[in-house]
Amino acid sequence: MSGFVVWFTGLSAAGKSTIAGLVAQELEARGVLVDRLDGDIVRTHLSKGLGFSKEDRDTNIERIGWVASRLARAGAAVVVSAISPYDEARRKARALVEEHSPFVLVHVATSIEECERRDPKGLYAMAHAGEIHGFTGIDDPYEEPRDAELTLHTEGRTPEESAAIVVARLEELAPDEVAA
Amino acid sequence: MSGFVVWFTGLSAAGKSTIAGLVAQELEARGVLVDRLDGDIVRTHLSKGLGFSKEDRDTNIERIGWVASRLARAGAAVVVSAISPYDEARRKARALVEEHSPFVLVHVATSIEECERRDPKGLYAMAHAGEIHGFTGIDDPYEEPRDAELTLHTEGRTPEESAAIVVARLEELAPDEVAA
Repeated sequence: MSGFVVWFTGLSAAGKSTIAGLVAQELEARGVLVDRLDGDIVRTHLSKGLGFSKEDRDTNIERIGWVASRLARAGAAVVVSAISPYDEARRKARALVEEHSPFVLVHVATSIEECERRDPKGLYAMAHAGEIHGFTGIDDPYEEPRDAELTLHTEGRTPEESAAIVVARLEELAPDEVAA
Repeated sequence: MSGFVVWFTGLSAAGKSTIAGLVAQELEARGVLVDRLDGDIVRTHLSKGLGFSKEDRDTNIERIGWVASRLARAGAAVVVSAISPYDEARRKARALVEEHSPFVLVHVATSIEECERRDPKGLYAMAHAGEIHGFTGIDDPYEEPRDAELTLHTEGRTPEESAAIVVARLEELAPDEVAA
């Protein structure tokens, strides 16, 4: 089996992990071997000690890209969800993966207003109150990708509907890799 | 294809990377998908910034173990070479891998006298001169494994002969995984 990477980028609370989880479920149901690299889990296993400075964020994304590229090479469908706010870091991850495997960038383009409304962990409120610093979208930039294979508008859609759109795009871009 | 991990542990200059490289070559020649995780390369991609304290060494080995376990799960033959001096850290890596895949620990048991004689990077000389600290075998412990699947005596053998012994052991322990 040939692997690939589908990489979800977007603001905190945009819905990346939820949609990524549903996409992973659907692929597994088809018998595809899936590995998930979720930003929070990765920070525990690969990037403990790294913070949220530009340099540390770049290092974190570089590590995820490196591991994702090797897993895809080994044949896994790798489902990454990470804010990954910087264009250059995302492009480096793409280049590494594309040495061997397809790379599909999904921009979960939920508006910041909607993300702030959801704010499930209260992080936007804390960022506005100045209790946390360097928060993406508030006092740290989110560079919108211009190279996304899919720009996903989640507002007015259920996570299941969003996941179905991603799977349909994967069927176009990597038909052999996601075949049942 | 089902994956596994073969993990080379031993002193600096014991011959781990050389033998691991030959084993990887032989597996690739059989059509097995191989991924190498070599201590030095891993320190660049996964563990930049980590030093050689007990805590940092443990973190480094934990990361290698985590990545190796996922690669093996995806079907790769993962060839690790790392001093990995601490028994507990090696056992944690083994436990993680064995959730899905076989784990074969190879102790490259070259004596410290022979390693000091070779000293290709001059590190033992520097450690004795007090120019570097926390060097395994000099002023940091190497805990000999009691759970190795293979204890490899390299003195009086060429690297090719040592590699052939490892491959023969893999054929016993993971016959399906290394079949031509």
